[in-house]
Amino acid sequence: MTDLSLDRARGILDAALTAAHDAEVSFSIAVVDAGGHLKAFLSQDGAPLASIDIALRKARTAQLFKTPTGTLGQYSQPGGALYNIELTNGGLVTFPGGVPLMAGTTLLGAIGVSGGLNEQDLSIATAGAAAL
Amino acid sequence: MTDLSLDRARGILDAALTAAHDAEVSFSIAVVDAGGHLKAFLSQDGAPLASIDIALRKARTAQLFKTPTGTLGQYSQPGGALYNIELTNGGLVTFPGGVPLMAGTTLLGAIGVSGGLNEQDLSIATAGAAAL
Amino acid sequence: MTDLSLDRARGILDAALTAAHDAEVSFSIAVVDAGGHLKAFLSQDGAPLASIDIALRKARTAQLFKTPTGTLGQYSQPGGALYNIELTNGGLVTFPGGVPLMAGTTLLGAIGVSGGLNEQDLSIATAGAAAL
Amino acid sequence: MTDLSLDRARGILDAALTAAHDAEVSFSIAVVDAGGHLKAFLSQDGAPLASIDIALRKARTAQLFKTPTGTLGQYSQPGGALYNIELTNGGLVTFPGGVPLMAGTTLLGAIGVSGGLNEQDLSIATAGAAAL
Repeated sequence: MTDLSLDRARGILDAALTAAHDAEVSFSIAVVDAGGHLKAFLSQDGAPLASIDIALRKARTAQLFKTPTGTLGQYSQPGGALYNIELTNGGLVTFPGGVPLMAGTTLLGAIGVSGGLNEQDLSIATAGAAAL
Repeated sequence: MTDLSLDRARGILDAALTAAHDAEVSFSIAVVDAGGHLKAFLSQDGAPLASIDIALRKARTAQLFKTPTGTLGQYSQPGGALYNIELTNGGLVTFPGGVPLMAGTTLLGAIGVSGGLNEQDLSIATAGAAAL
Repeated sequence: MTDLSLDRARGILDAALTAAHDAEVSFSIAVVDAGGHLKAFLSQDGAPLASIDIALRKARTAQLFKTPTGTLGQYSQPGGALYNIELTNGGLVTFPGGVPLMAGTTLLGAIGVSGGLNEQDLSIATAGAAAL
Repeated sequence: MTDLSLDRARGILDAALTAAHDAEVSFSIAVVDAGGHLKAFLSQDGAPLASIDIALRKARTAQLFKTPTGTLGQYSQPGGALYNIELTNGGLVTFPGGVPLMAGTTLLGAIGVSGGLNEQDLSIATAGAAAL
């Protein structure tokens, strides 16, 4: 569960911060390890307070399913195969902004971003994950 | 965390009570500070007991997002950008009746009202907020 | 469960505030009905944020047991008859500051006060209860 | 709620990391703002996974009471004035390692450290707080 070093986690946060630099809003960004345990976190000044919990849950959701949160959301709608799966595992988030951190097929952890539009959150999470 | 004084919070409650005076139903009304901490609360005689928790959550939801709860609800529907966001942050409410208390662009807290129809709850919350 | 009117609850809060007037610290004060449902609440400016939850729990503890919280605490110590009873009912508080509101032998509700020394909290809760 | 800037929070984390450099164990370190909302966090490689939650709770406990967690623990022992207060506010920690971040008499937030002996955790938290 400690495959993701703190150095790497901080590098991921820094890459996400760089990607967030030109946005006109502020973000909370969480990195969890392969076991879903919080490794590193920051919340930019002015980020909505609600974004803290949502970033944490996006990271944990992506880690639990080894899948981007938005992909999971395609199946959790009414009538979908995973309807209301958000109610499991202590509360999940299935809109975009959570991305697994993979080394090949091995899960190292996940990043979750919240504070902007879904596409902004996803873009920043993807930039962070690319720094792995 | 004490930007919202107790005097102001009680004034907001009184204004909301005045607005509720002509309704044929009873309400619970909660005021939280900028950090989401409960500042003042009352539940009118005959208000549904369920309205207590709902008023508290409406206030906290409006505070966490700096947004009226009903606005958030437009995005949390099935297929929406924030589907099932109600499951985050310990449980949110996204139908109308929660309104942020703003001084310009600065969040001072929020008011949450429950007990009547959505439009009644919102009308009373708005009247309370106007007393700020 | 609605035996305790809002008028009475607000009178209890006002009496408690008057009793708190000469203290050099600030308090949170909660009044619950006979069912433990929150009826009225306020937190004075400068009260420790921790006092909010503690006042609510003191009120609910006194209501659940029809007993002052400090009395319960005499039995919840290590080796006592009710050791660790604080772990039940969602989390209780068994140090002083919670007092039941009685009409003869009928429970109408309870008041909980937090923010000062135990004796201060109890004194203010008692003054509030006397206004019933 | 944004009194504690991210720059300052990261400076506090860095100062704590420097202080932790010579320890033979690893630590989790959390910084919360004045409202108890998570601002920045890291967990060193090899830190016990349990230290993550404990660091978060130490920070929040120090913030809620504007007091070092160890001081609170002096009063929460069996027979003490605040026995079992740990059960309030969603779960507190009252052994050393949580320290409020003060600007004079104004609370800006708190730091919580876990992973070592109490005196190590406290020493690192104090070094972090000194960087404010």
